[in-house]
Amino acid sequence: MPENLELDAVPGVPDFSGWSCPLPLADYPNIVMGHGGGGRLGNELVEHLFLPAFRNAALENLGDAAVLDLGAGRIAMSTDSFVVQPLFFPGGSIGALAVNGTVNDLAVSGAVPKFLTAGFILEEGFPLSQLAAIVQEMASSAAAAGVQIVTGDTKVVERGHGDGCYINTAGVGVLREGISVGPHRAQPGDAILVSGTLGDHGMAIMSVREGLEFESQIRSDCAALNGLIANVLDVCGQAVHAMRDPTRGGLASTLNEIAQASDVGMMIDEPSLPVRPEVQSACELLGFDPVYVANEGKVVFFVAPEAAGDVLAILRAHPLGRDAARIGTVTAEHKRMLVARTAMGANRVISIQIGEQLPRIC
Amino acid sequence: MPENLELDAVPGVPDFSGWSCPLPLADYPNIVMGHGGGGRLGNELVEHLFLPAFRNAALENLGDAAVLDLGAGRIAMSTDSFVVQPLFFPGGSIGALAVNGTVNDLAVSGAVPKFLTAGFILEEGFPLSQLAAIVQEMASSAAAAGVQIVTGDTKVVERGHGDGCYINTAGVGVLREGISVGPHRAQPGDAILVSGTLGDHGMAIMSVREGLEFESQIRSDCAALNGLIANVLDVCGQAVHAMRDPTRGGLASTLNEIAQASDVGMMIDEPSLPVRPEVQSACELLGFDPVYVANEGKVVFFVAPEAAGDVLAILRAHPLGRDAARIGTVTAEHKRMLVARTAMGANRVISIQIGEQLPRIC
Repeated sequence: MPENLELDAVPGVPDFSGWSCPLPLADYPNIVMGHGGGGRLGNELVEHLFLPAFRNAALENLGDAAVLDLGAGRIAMSTDSFVVQPLFFPGGSIGALAVNGTVNDLAVSGAVPKFLTAGFILEEGFPLSQLAAIVQEMASSAAAAGVQIVTGDTKVVERGHGDGCYINTAGVGVLREGISVGPHRAQPGDAILVSGTLGDHGMAIMSVREGLEFESQIRSDCAALNGLIANVLDVCGQAVHAMRDPTRGGLASTLNEIAQASDVGMMIDEPSLPVRPEVQSACELLGFDPVYVANEGKVVFFVAPEAAGDVLAILRAHPLGRDAARIGTVTAEHKRMLVARTAMGANRVISIQIGEQLPRIC
Repeated sequence: MPENLELDAVPGVPDFSGWSCPLPLADYPNIVMGHGGGGRLGNELVEHLFLPAFRNAALENLGDAAVLDLGAGRIAMSTDSFVVQPLFFPGGSIGALAVNGTVNDLAVSGAVPKFLTAGFILEEGFPLSQLAAIVQEMASSAAAAGVQIVTGDTKVVERGHGDGCYINTAGVGVLREGISVGPHRAQPGDAILVSGTLGDHGMAIMSVREGLEFESQIRSDCAALNGLIANVLDVCGQAVHAMRDPTRGGLASTLNEIAQASDVGMMIDEPSLPVRPEVQSACELLGFDPVYVANEGKVVFFVAPEAAGDVLAILRAHPLGRDAARIGTVTAEHKRMLVARTAMGANRVISIQIGEQLPRIC
């Protein structure tokens, strides 16, 4: 049994005890191998759990694929698997992450996210009440983001070959007309803006895992960014050259990757980086640098300098962008490198990390 | 370490010893947690393994989502996760299954499959040589099916929380004009055709697992069906009311599901079911009924009776349809049930199985 099943003492983690299973799922309070077969048990999961939660016309057809009308020829397509532990944490859950992660990947590509798929790999013995809670989180996150979950798949693996629940989502969105963003389009002179505080998600996960307590609880920033991004693109679309959500590897990976893709340098002003005091404390305690810590509800913009003020104002007017800040500039110098000006006035190179600083945070 | 890593004595399973790892992947012959992080190791997997194998313009952009031009408004979208054990088996592999499975789900929905995503959940310690072999199988299967793998994701879980390699694929395809198939469109009088022999995939997997040997080796039928289906739809598109690939749960699940979705009955003639002698022998030995055993390269058609002969002829002219057969008729009687006329002239109801007869066969 995964360790996370004993998480009820952690604030922010839901209480499953009140969940009552609709018949006939009640015959099996936990996942059995048969829930992954092509038989009645699998169909009951679809009928009594997935369909009621995700209900929409495309899904109800229960075909082998969802049939969708996108109305336009150019689409974006993205996928992510989610293996986060614990499955529920302050500010989010694997279900919320699975929806928001793919929504955000589409949104930063300049697309309006429309439709998601959902693939579950469940471990034998996983409580159906937890699956139901995860599915509800996915349904409410999808509704909040304005996307539909239109098709899905469930596999079950034997006890000891999974970790409760892994989820893959893939998504498609319609590319906005007249918008041309991409990781290779950042230009020297572009302002680098971030939509809010850094490191909240990664440190929320680590705090739960390590049992840390701070004066104020660290909550994940897990959120769908398509609304925030739409506000920016509606007004300043031509000025936005690139966007990326700094998830695994944090801000440092994002800036290094864009620097390489665009063949430019990046200079950031370290004191300008927005970091919550409790996140800063947790980072110092655990030996992490916030620039490497994952975010799940933030976006970095690379925008023409003359539009930087307007974009910042639009970001700050949105609930998800209140702490937005200008943190640096794209340069023609030190190509393919990220350099930070420290509070002491020194420059330091922030390279991409070799591997995993925080395993399984999404 | 998953048990399947010791499979080299099994015929049909590739020999990994000759695989040489391109630098700098060679520093890590096995998957480490860092391959799933947002850092350099993950980027090296993309650069040295996934990109060379799957190379295409959309993937090379390395954006958060692939940007695609479908040229038409109506698309189909599908997803499947693959957890098959062993990872390599006579006639196929998890890589071939992952591509063909999603290609087939799109094709039976009346779409021309175009683009796939690939999400990997790898277990710490999984040999890179095996991952490379799987990726090559995916690349060659995609090329054979005429689809592109345009975006992907890799997560790594700790040893003991996976089983070597799990893969999710999602796909989109363009719906063919003038074709209107769906699980709810089968009509009384429709002929039920199957494109070839039943049970090959499931019994190939079981034979490897159980160490069975027969006079002729049982090979999986794993194949992409979009070419075969296109041949039928090009000529007889109006006559085809529904299609489905009988994977998990086999023919019995497929026919029961279509009977329920279309509110019709199904009558099949048991002696007409095409089953290879060695598959029949394996089923008898292991106590399986071929109608419940999974296929990965077969499709069931529900077609207007006047077109049945033409469709059969088209199927038999294709290498994947040589053993195609008419196996039954859709009826107005015994709605939502599948009835088989046995060789003795008796009728038996074949219900949907409750759960998993053959776990983890795809």
